[in-house]
Order: sequence, then structure tokens, then C-alpha cells
Amino acid sequence: MKKYNKVVLAYSGGLDTSIIIPWLKENYGCEVIAVVGNVGQKDELEGLEKKAINTGASKIYIEDLTKEFVYDYIFPTIKANAVYEGKYLLGTSFARPIIGKRMVEIALKEGADAICHGCTGKGNDQVRFELAIKAYAPDMPIIAPWRIWDIKSREEEIQYAMDKNIPIKLTPETNYSKDKNLWHLSHEGLDLENPNNEPNYEKILELSKTVEKAPDKPTYITISFEKGIPVALNGKKMNGVDIILALNKIGGENAIGICDMVENRLVGMKSRGVYETPGGSILYYAHKDLESICLDKETMHYKEMVSLKFADIVYNGQWYTPLREALSAFIDKTQETVTGDVNLKLYKGNIISAGISSPYSLYSEEYATFNEDEVYNQNDSAGFINLFGLPITVKAKMEQALKEKK
Amino acid sequence: MKKYNKVVLAYSGGLDTSIIIPWLKENYGCEVIAVVGNVGQKDELEGLEKKAINTGASKIYIEDLTKEFVYDYIFPTIKANAVYEGKYLLGTSFARPIIGKRMVEIALKEGADAICHGCTGKGNDQVRFELAIKAYAPDMPIIAPWRIWDIKSREEEIQYAMDKNIPIKLTPETNYSKDKNLWHLSHEGLDLENPNNEPNYEKILELSKTVEKAPDKPTYITISFEKGIPVALNGKKMNGVDIILALNKIGGENAIGICDMVENRLVGMKSRGVYETPGGSILYYAHKDLESICLDKETMHYKEMVSLKFADIVYNGQWYTPLREALSAFIDKTQETVTGDVNLKLYKGNIISAGISSPYSLYSEEYATFNEDEVYNQNDSAGFINLFGLPITVKAKMEQALKEKK
Amino acid sequence: MKKYNKVVLAYSGGLDTSIIIPWLKENYGCEVIAVVGNVGQKDELEGLEKKAINTGASKIYIEDLTKEFVYDYIFPTIKANAVYEGKYLLGTSFARPIIGKRMVEIALKEGADAICHGCTGKGNDQVRFELAIKAYAPDMPIIAPWRIWDIKSREEEIQYAMDKNIPIKLTPETNYSKDKNLWHLSHEGLDLENPNNEPNYEKILELSKTVEKAPDKPTYITISFEKGIPVALNGKKMNGVDIILALNKIGGENAIGICDMVENRLVGMKSRGVYETPGGSILYYAHKDLESICLDKETMHYKEMVSLKFADIVYNGQWYTPLREALSAFIDKTQETVTGDVNLKLYKGNIISAGISSPYSLYSEEYATFNEDEVYNQNDSAGFINLFGLPITVKAKMEQALKEKK
Amino acid sequence: MKKYNKVVLAYSGGLDTSIIIPWLKENYGCEVIAVVGNVGQKDELEGLEKKAINTGASKIYIEDLTKEFVYDYIFPTIKANAVYEGKYLLGTSFARPIIGKRMVEIALKEGADAICHGCTGKGNDQVRFELAIKAYAPDMPIIAPWRIWDIKSREEEIQYAMDKNIPIKLTPETNYSKDKNLWHLSHEGLDLENPNNEPNYEKILELSKTVEKAPDKPTYITISFEKGIPVALNGKKMNGVDIILALNKIGGENAIGICDMVENRLVGMKSRGVYETPGGSILYYAHKDLESICLDKETMHYKEMVSLKFADIVYNGQWYTPLREALSAFIDKTQETVTGDVNLKLYKGNIISAGISSPYSLYSEEYATFNEDEVYNQNDSAGFINLFGLPITVKAKMEQALKEKK
Repeated sequence: MKKYNKVVLAYSGGLDTSIIIPWLKENYGCEVIAVVGNVGQKDELEGLEKKAINTGASKIYIEDLTKEFVYDYIFPTIKANAVYEGKYLLGTSFARPIIGKRMVEIALKEGADAICHGCTGKGNDQVRFELAIKAYAPDMPIIAPWRIWDIKSREEEIQYAMDKNIPIKLTPETNYSKDKNLWHLSHEGLDLENPNNEPNYEKILELSKTVEKAPDKPTYITISFEKGIPVALNGKKMNGVDIILALNKIGGENAIGICDMVENRLVGMKSRGVYETPGGSILYYAHKDLESICLDKETMHYKEMVSLKFADIVYNGQWYTPLREALSAFIDKTQETVTGDVNLKLYKGNIISAGISSPYSLYSEEYATFNEDEVYNQNDSAGFINLFGLPITVKAKMEQALKEKK
Repeated sequence: MKKYNKVVLAYSGGLDTSIIIPWLKENYGCEVIAVVGNVGQKDELEGLEKKAINTGASKIYIEDLTKEFVYDYIFPTIKANAVYEGKYLLGTSFARPIIGKRMVEIALKEGADAICHGCTGKGNDQVRFELAIKAYAPDMPIIAPWRIWDIKSREEEIQYAMDKNIPIKLTPETNYSKDKNLWHLSHEGLDLENPNNEPNYEKILELSKTVEKAPDKPTYITISFEKGIPVALNGKKMNGVDIILALNKIGGENAIGICDMVENRLVGMKSRGVYETPGGSILYYAHKDLESICLDKETMHYKEMVSLKFADIVYNGQWYTPLREALSAFIDKTQETVTGDVNLKLYKGNIISAGISSPYSLYSEEYATFNEDEVYNQNDSAGFINLFGLPITVKAKMEQALKEKK
Repeated sequence: MKKYNKVVLAYSGGLDTSIIIPWLKENYGCEVIAVVGNVGQKDELEGLEKKAINTGASKIYIEDLTKEFVYDYIFPTIKANAVYEGKYLLGTSFARPIIGKRMVEIALKEGADAICHGCTGKGNDQVRFELAIKAYAPDMPIIAPWRIWDIKSREEEIQYAMDKNIPIKLTPETNYSKDKNLWHLSHEGLDLENPNNEPNYEKILELSKTVEKAPDKPTYITISFEKGIPVALNGKKMNGVDIILALNKIGGENAIGICDMVENRLVGMKSRGVYETPGGSILYYAHKDLESICLDKETMHYKEMVSLKFADIVYNGQWYTPLREALSAFIDKTQETVTGDVNLKLYKGNIISAGISSPYSLYSEEYATFNEDEVYNQNDSAGFINLFGLPITVKAKMEQALKEKK
Repeated sequence: MKKYNKVVLAYSGGLDTSIIIPWLKENYGCEVIAVVGNVGQKDELEGLEKKAINTGASKIYIEDLTKEFVYDYIFPTIKANAVYEGKYLLGTSFARPIIGKRMVEIALKEGADAICHGCTGKGNDQVRFELAIKAYAPDMPIIAPWRIWDIKSREEEIQYAMDKNIPIKLTPETNYSKDKNLWHLSHEGLDLENPNNEPNYEKILELSKTVEKAPDKPTYITISFEKGIPVALNGKKMNGVDIILALNKIGGENAIGICDMVENRLVGMKSRGVYETPGGSILYYAHKDLESICLDKETMHYKEMVSLKFADIVYNGQWYTPLREALSAFIDKTQETVTGDVNLKLYKGNIISAGISSPYSLYSEEYATFNEDEVYNQNDSAGFINLFGLPITVKAKMEQALKEKK
């Protein structure tokens, strides 16, 4: 095996990255610097410093990325209405590029000669991390232990940890595979691995109540947007991080944003997961509702197609690519008038529109009503239909003429 | 004004088409044949024969189109997952072409020299009707009274009806503008014309309970599909019409499929409506859930884009066009393996996945799990990422080289 | 007929707009101000002032729009690689919005109460002019004589001109319907109206030699681009207008950019035209060649799809729309590295690549060659193929298992 | 290394596959069966049997795939108008799947336990071959020597051949890397590896004359299509293979279909090649010309987008996938009326339209002309424009109102 002097490790404090520290030292003879990107995973951050050092890291960086995460990754994706395969709000997907980029910055500053991550060889996250690293340090060696070591299962991991005296906390409750941040919490594994099993939400959910246990009274909220970005909640100006935190609480209480899906991973297989995205689901809904009055039809319809591509790109970890940047330029242009207020009623899993307004509204009561108005001349539609339908007429007449010939 | 001998009228028995009968006779000196397409509007069909004759029609056709409607229009659209602007399930849109086509058949059989409809000049339905007529009788004159007569409001209509002794039934409850069929019920007008007004669902809903009044216990159902088409409910083989009727009942009871939206009409303005599509919403959800295990990723992703176009085409009334037919050929091909069972939990407005299975499932627990398996070699992903990411690496190295030059 | 005081007329000095002046005065009792947008139609501009006044206009504006035309309309379209239906380089299409916008500016300055154009009711140009007017003066009345007057043919036009003593010059050579500007010259009508007739290029072509008469020696040129825009020809910095003029000359000499096509008009019918776009064809080719080394694959492929939409929008006259602006934002972002030199060989109708270079080139001889290199590990492709092909493997194994069951 | 009993090898008789035979025997101790797919490479097929046996193969299959190649691979791609990156007509791309599939059939019949190909690890062909194999034998081991052996260059190959007494023919003229079949001939390598080098066509071209040496007299041809497929040349019914052969001759004589491009390989890097596709270029052009009168606008425009995807899929070797099949279903539906005759003039590299006709033509001289006709009421366009432009009007009025407020 190649030797390294200093390796920067994407560290979470979980079982995987805990045993990677001694494994790296043993196999590469290197110093290990742990890096934690704080993207809002909260309680998972507690005690990480002590833990990393105890496990053998020479140093730990705990980087607060929450604000950058919200403004530079989450909001551009909301503006795009990007949803992967109709359901997934990309919570893990866009967290990887921001962490990967910071890893590179630290690795360069520290003069590290490799970067390591603890992602499995069957998942998307390895791709997302590594594409970010390639974008900012194309020559940096990457170590992905799961793809090369002999450990093949959770049981062997635990054994390795015990052999190396790594303190690990294993509780039966926490054994779904999870990913948590400011935006969402995902659950994979165990009984969920059979798509024919109904999820046991009572057991699974952490951010949200079940729909059954959500309150019997609706909660009304108002979200204000400026140029596609949420800027106030219930009339109170707040920064983006706080809006999401507040909506997570309100949304979770009302059982909003629980999603169960089988998705297509980038690496070729299908997987099944349950996602909790309470605040995110509300923001997406509100944003689209506002767009329904602020965007003209052609822009909105084309943007629906762009959304699909944007979601693929984010899911695939291609954040730092010319195409993502060009699509964002498109999207930002469309958002210039997406400013206004959206009222929503939240009730037992439902997000219900309760009124939209905007100074840039393209909705006009005068035109919409079936009564006469001053702008719209109903007789214009006769001409419109004749021309819009001309290709149909021409084709029908061609077919008639053909029939008559026979 | 041109004279006609015999005019076939798309008749509903409502105020609009009721006054059109005497208006046609008066203005064109013609006989009027009323045609009703039964697409499941039910109670609205009662007493139509008598009413039409009393109002001056010489004859009435009440055509049962329900089965054709379901199999030739609704199911192809479900297979396409076509949703207009993210919300509207196209209930009115695909009802117009089928009626328009039957109108032409009757007009040709009867030797009529014009076809008339009562659609407003500001709406989509005029386009949908007329495109259908152009497709099957490109030379047939079309009379659209709302675009040419002097009547400019509901009040003037009522006055005209009274002048002509047309018996009309006006009740304050029914004055939203509605369209009802087997698939859905739409509501427009009045307070809904301001998108900032929250809908008064207690007052509006007819097919569905409000979310608040839906039962506190969930309802579990199983829908079985064959090649993308629903064929059984809860294990019982049923024809498509009965499945929709049954799901409307179950869905309505559980407050499923209520949608409030501002949409872009084809004729250029935005309008706001509330839609009830209880059974339809369940079928769409179930169908997509099943596709998530039966379709491979590339097919599914491309089909997401095709869905957008299909929705536009249906919304625009372009059913009888080469493009719609070609898109249907694409879609039908993708549906060959969309066969299996979908379990759903319905609860107070929520449709919740509760297990999916298919003999053609492409989901494999073996690959999905993070443990080792026999097919998937985790180390393959290193190569995959290097090549998938090669354009990123190349670009980053080009930028590095440029920087070094400076 | 409504009366107007002052009407601004899009004036060309041709037969149509010449008789419109007296017709407007006669029918609306108005003063007529002629406006000519100079977009490079050259000799067609000669003597226009005198002609307009003699024909009855009170005033004429001849506006030099060439530079704005090139930088704000032509270059954004080149950057988009927008081609309508695979052949048409949009020469007339983007000339209409710029003229329409200037018409509005003059109309507002002059306090005119209507704008008039001489476009036929069967063509695209009426749409393009009027959409531009609506964008900048949504309430301005528009007069389109061809849609309302009694004149129904060229013969009746000539008669009207003679009745009104309008001096007209009719020569048999000029009786194709033409549109000329800096970018192109189009030909429609006469024998071209049957798509089965081969064009008589000897008779038709004005900007270009026929392929047969083009010189027997090739011409080599080098075009330099910065951020997608041509900035130099054969190493000499030139402004955009001069580059196009020079390339028109060189291209015309070498029979470049002659195109014969049947196209779909926006107003629903097909039409047939011959286009000469010598310089434009060269610029498009060169720009795409340069992009082939400067854009990464995903950006280029997505941009191919955007090109199609951009072409539709330009063709349809929807230049001043949010979607066109948002697409331009996308495109501009992609052009940031489209800088470099393209060598071309022009020979008897052929544009032949003769070498491309760019400081931002993503082409790497090292990777491309089949020999070993330091970055690309050939064994990576085994992993790549296994994962890229995993959906195929999974499907094949599912089918195998199904077969075995039976 | 794993041992195999019998390996089926994709054999061409070139240097690569010649040395692979002894290499396989040496390294796997296996019998080697050579398989040649005859897809029209002609003279390259001569003497292959003797050569393969002499080199150590136990058996050789020379499979005539030409007819299947034309009807099941080439024609579906012509119908799609699929062009990769605007230039490449996919000649190598669709030849790989057909050969790969036959390899599997022979391997299964022969009871072989592995399949081997001689493609480089940096190219597309390895992917195309292997995806075909996975589709029909998902468990079949694949041996790709270039990705695993120690031979790293042409020089080492030659040395290996001499060591093993493999008779090889090396001539300086043939040292571009080439791929030849019925459809095309490609050239890569040497001086072409620098995109700034102009190709030396005198030296490179084999199927075609240079544009300079093509005859000074044009050649006129007529191609007849039925449902998108060429069925006759100059009025003579011919099968597809013969049409392509004849057009290759005519096209090559007239220097048609020479293309020089930098393309994006699937495996992530750019490469540069020169392609000769004389007959293919003519067929593509003719097919699109015919579509211009047979397809309605919406179908044609949507199909332009589908073409891009179809090209990607073919290029990527994803022929045997549900998405390719579904796209073909779409395309076939559009081709039902693509029947008619196309006249072309071929002259020194130019394909020039010389008349199109079809019994299903949607072109109507009556509508296209600017004179009055019976179907098209010019005044209809006023209504059309008002509604088509309504979103522009609405937006302009909203902006006006906003301005007035300020």
C-alpha cells in the first residue's frame, strides 16, 4: 500500500469513521485529521472533539457550514423546485458537496496528501464527496476504506472496533442507517429493505409526529419570499437558517414532509428510504404556489423540465459543474419577480393553500372571470383556435382527400 | 348571418346550453339536435331528455361514453403520469375530445350542417371541443354563441331565458362554475377568483369530506395493475369504471385529492380553481409507486419529461394529434412490465405508501443493502467515479494550468 | 372605423407600405409617420426619405439599428446555436423585435395613437412585430391593413397604387418575396411555392454565387471568439458588424449558406423558402466547432436541447419574454470559456474545419490517445461499465428468473 | 488468474485481436473461438478464416449480419434523425450491439464460459460490447485484455506478436486507427490527435474523393421512402443494403459526408476523429427533407428533442434498453406517413434539395401563398396574436401599474 503522511478524514463520530481512524494509521502510517462539517446535524455534534482525539485523530476541525449550506445550496435548489424522482428533496445530496469542498480547503491548508471518507461502495455519497474533491483538488488521492478493506459487514466493524479499543455506542433504536442535517433526516435499512413492508412510522420518525398523532387543529402560517428566497415567517423577517429551523418544528408537529420511496441510486441499483423533511416540504410547496402567480406559463413550463435536470445533477453530486452553474443562472433569472406572501394551512400531514399574493402577480381577476372585460375580446379566440388548430385541419383535409382518391 | 338547416349542440341542460337552443333557432332558422356525452356526470343527466325537448330541441342523444372515456382517455393519461402544472389531473381536459368526436359522428349521421357548443370565449373548453371537431370534420362550421351574441353576463342570460320562457333552476348553492364527470369535479368563480382567498371547503366540496371531517381511522386498500392499468381493487377484479367509482367513494370519504391552484389557461390568462379528484389522485399515486420498482432509472427519468409534454397536450385539447399518438406509443412501451400490487393507507387527506410488489420488480434487496453481495463489486465504484468525474477532473486541471501560467 | 390622429408606420418603401400611407390617411384621417429600422438592408434604404414624403408621410425616421442588432440580437442567438427546424438561421425573425421596439419608442415620443405594419395576415412577421409592441406598449392599438382591407392580391395593390398616384417600381427580377438585412436574404413565392420544384439558383441568388460558379481555390479564414462572440477575423480585431459584412462577402463568394427548406410557420401552415446567410452560416459553424473543445459533455448536450427552444422562441417573436431572458442567462453562463480561434476552409459551398484552439480547451491529447497516460487508469473502465450497465444486468437477471419460474 | 475452458473472442484480424488469441490461451489455458460479425467491412474480411486458425483459434464464425444491421439498427436510427453532437452518424456505435448480441448467441451455443473483446480501456466500444453482453448473458464473464495485460503500446504489441510468431501486416498507410462497416469509415490517431491540425484528406479518405477532386458536374438522385425507410433509388426498388452500397459509391464520388469533429466519449474525455459516411449522410438529409412536408410542426419539434436522446443512447451502447425501445415506439409512430420521394443534387461535398413530394404532404400551396384562400381567414391572426401574446400584454401591464405606483 502507498504511504501517506497526513490524511484528512470526513468524520462523523459514527461507527464507520471511528474505526477508520486507527485503520488509516495502521495501513498508511499517517497522521489523521478529522473534519466535521456542521450542516445542522445538531446533537450528533456533541462530544465529537473528545471522541476523535480519543480514537487517534491528531486534530479535529468542526466547521460551521449552516449558513452557507442554506444560502448557497438549499435555496438555489428550492428556487429550482428540484425534486428527485417526484419525492426526494435532496437533503443528503447537497450536503456532500459543501463538506467535500471544505475538506479540500483544510487538506490544502494542512498540507495533507490524501483525503478519506467513510462512504460505502454501494451508495451515492462516495460519488458526491469525490466529485467535490476532484473539482477543487483534481490530483488529490482519495481513500475510500469500504471499497478496499476486508471488513464486509457491521458485525466485522464492531469486532474491529473492539480489537482497537474504540469506544462505540450501539443501541438497538439507532440502527436504521441515517443521515441528518438542518434540512432532513433519512432512514434506510432493516425492514425498509423490502419495499413491500409498510414502514413502522411510530418507530422510525424523529423529526415528525405521525399523521395520526398530529394535532386536531390546523396551524396557519405565512411565508414571505423575495426573489424566490424565504425571508420572513408569519410577517417576521428571519434569516434562512432560522426559517428552516422554525418550519421544521411546525412541520414536524403537523406530520408534514414524511416520504417513503424506492429511488434509483446513481451507481445503478434501486434503494428504499424514508425521509423526513418537514420544513423543506413546506418551503417547496410555498415556493411553487407563489410561482403559480408570478411566472408566466412558458417560463413555468420550461422550468418544470429544468427542475428535473437540476434534481438529477444535485442527486449525482455534480454541484461544481458548468451545467449546474448555467442552470442556476437560468433559474435565478426566473426568480426576479418571485416575491410575495404565501398562506398555508398545515393539518395532519397536509399542506393546504390558503391564499397567495404578490406585487408581481400575473393573475388578473378581470381576465379570468367569464364576464366581459376591456382587454380580452372573446371573439379573438375564434381566430386563435383556427390558427392553433390549423395543423389539425390541414391533416384532416389531407386524409379526406386521400380517402376520396381511393 | 349565415343560415343552417340542422345544428348539433353539445348540451348539458345548464343555463348556457338551455338558452342556446332558442337562440340558435331564432338566429339560424335551424333545427337543433341536443347531444349529451355521458362521461359520468350522473345526477346532472336526470331529466335531460324532457328538458331539451321542452326548450325547443327536435331530438336528443344521450350517449354513454363512460367505458370509452376510462379506457381510451383516462387510462392512457394515468399511464403517462400526466399532471398539468404539478397539480391538475386533467379531468375536464380529456372529457372534451371524446364528446367532440361523438358530436361529429352524430352530426355526420344526421346530416347536420353545423356544430354548436356553449363554452365561453375565455376558456380552454372551446379550444378542446373545436380541435376535436376539426380533426374529424375539418370543414364543419362551428357556432360558439358566447363569442358572438350580445349576452355578456349571467344576469343577461337569465333575462334571456325568462324572455324565451326557458325553465331554469337557480339556487345560490350551485353558483360556482362547475364541471363534473366520472373522474373529477371542478369549481371556479366567486370568491375563488381572488387567489388570496382561502377556499371555503365546507361550502365547496361535494365529492369529498374536508380533511377535518374525514374519519380518524385509516383505510387500507390494494390496487392491482396490469401493464400500467388498474385491474383490481383489494384483490377483486373489476372493470376500470367501477374501480374509479369505488375509489372516488373511498377517496372522498378520506378527503383525498382536493387541490387548489392557479393555472395557466391555453388562451393566455391565469385562472384559479378547486378540483376534487379523489379516485384519480389515488390511482396516480399508486401507479407512480408501482413504476418506482418496475421501471429502470433512464426510462423513468425520460418519462418524467414526457409526462410534462403529455399533460400540456391533453390540457390543450390536442388529443387527436400525431404527437399525442406518438407519445402514447412511447408510454405504452414503458408500461409492459408495470404490473403488480400497491398497498396504500388513506388517512385524512394523506395517501401513504404501504408496500409495493411486482413480478417485474427491478429492486433487489441484495444489491441495495450495504453488505457485500455477489453481483456488485464495491471496488467497481472507484472506476465508475473516476470516469463519471473525468470531465470535472479535466476542467479542474485546465483551470489549474491556466492559473499557473499567470 | 375608429379614427386616429397620428399613426406610426413600419415603412420599407416597398409596394405594401407605399400604398398603406394613403390608405391610412384615407381611412383614419390621420397623419402618418414612417419609420425605417436600418438593420443592414443597404441599397433598399436609398431614397426612402423622398419616397415616403412623396407618398404622403408627414415625417420619416431612418434609425440605424445595425450595431444593436448585431450585439443584442444576432450574437445572443449565435451563442445559443439556435437553428429553426435544422436549417433556418432566423434572419428575419430577430429583425422584427428590434424594429418593433424602436417603433414603440418613436410612437411614444411622437404621441402617436396607433402603430401600423404592412405584414400579411398569413405570416410570422405580424406576430413578431405585434408581440414587440405589446411588450413595450400593451395598450397601443395596432393596425394591420392586410387583415382588414379589401385588397386581396398584388394586382389589386398595383391598381390601388395607380389610383392614388403612388410611384412604384416593378421589375420582373424582383418578384420573389424577399427580406434582406445584414444577416440574410430570404426568397419566397412563385415557383418556390411548389416544394417539388428545384430552385433556380442562378436566378434567385443575390448575396452568393452558385456552388458551380464559386472559385476553384479554397479560401482559408480564422475567426477568433471571446466568450462566444466573434471579435477578430484573420487575426484582425473588428467590430461585430464589420465581421459579418466581411464574412458575407467571403461566404457569398464561396457559395456558403444557401438553404432551401419547407418550414412550419407559427400561424399553422407550412411554407417554403430559400435563404442566403453566408456570413451567418460561417459564424454558426465556427462557434459550434469552438464549443466542441471548450464545453464539457453534459453542458453541451443540455445546451443542444436549449438551442431548440431558443430557436422556437426567436422564430415566434417572443424575444421580449422572461423565458428568452432566462435562457440567455443560461447560455451566457456557458459561454464564459468559449474563447479561442477557429480555422476554416471555405470551398464551393463547403465549410471545412481546419483547426481549433483555445486556452480553455478541455481536449487532452494525453487522455485521448489509446496509449497509457498518468491520469486515466484503463482498468477504471471495468468498474465504470459494471455500474453504468447495472440496470441492464438487473433487468436481464429479472427476466432470466421469470423465465426459469415458468 | 481465473481459468476458462472456452472463450469466444470478437475477432477482426487486426493486430489487437491477433495477439489476443495466444494471450488468452497462455493466460487462461482456454480454447479460443473467433467470431467475426460481417457488418459490411468487406475487404477486411478476406482471409480471416485462415488467419484466425493460424493464430491459434480453434474455430471461426463469420456471421453475415449486414441485412439485420441495416434494417434493425441503421434504419431505426435514420428514422430518429439521430446525430451525435451535431455531426457523428453513429457508424461504429450501432455496429457494436449487433455483434455483441451474436457473440452471446454463439457463446451460449458453444457452451463458452467467457467472452473476450479487444477494445481499449479508453474508448466507447468496450462499453457498447459489454452492455450488449450483459443484456443477453448477465452472468457471462467478460475479458478485456487491454484493461489488464502489461502491453501498453503499439510497439509492445508488435513485439508480443513477433515473440509469438503471429504474422502481422503493418503498412504506413494504414496506421490511423480505423473502424469500417457498411455505413461508415472512421479515422483516429496520429496527427488528428491535435485538434488544431487540419486533416490531410488526400491521405485519409478511402471511401470518398476530396471535395476538390469530386466531379465538376452534379449528380441528381431520387430516393423513395416508405414509412421512413428508403425503398428505392432513382425509381428502382432495392433492398436496404443495396441502397446504402449504391449511395456510398455515388456519395463518395461526390465527396459527400466527410466530417471532422472533436467528440465527447462516454468514458469522460474528448477525442477527435474524421468520419466518412457518404451514403448515410445522403439518407439522413433526404429523410429529414421528406419529414419537413410529412410531419406536423409539434411532432417534428418534439422529435428534434427525442433525436438528441436517441443519439446519446446509441452512442452509449444502450441499444438493448427499455428506453431505446420506447423511443423507437415513439419514432415508428411518427413515421407512418413519412412516405414519398426526395430529389437531391450532389455536387462537390454539397447535398442540395431538388424537390420533395409525398402523398401525405401537409404542405398546401393554397395556404402558403400570401393571396387569399378559402380555408385561411387572415383576420383570424388578429385573434391569434392577441391570445398568443396575452401573457406578454399581462406582464407589460403589471409592470406599468407597478411603475405608476412608485
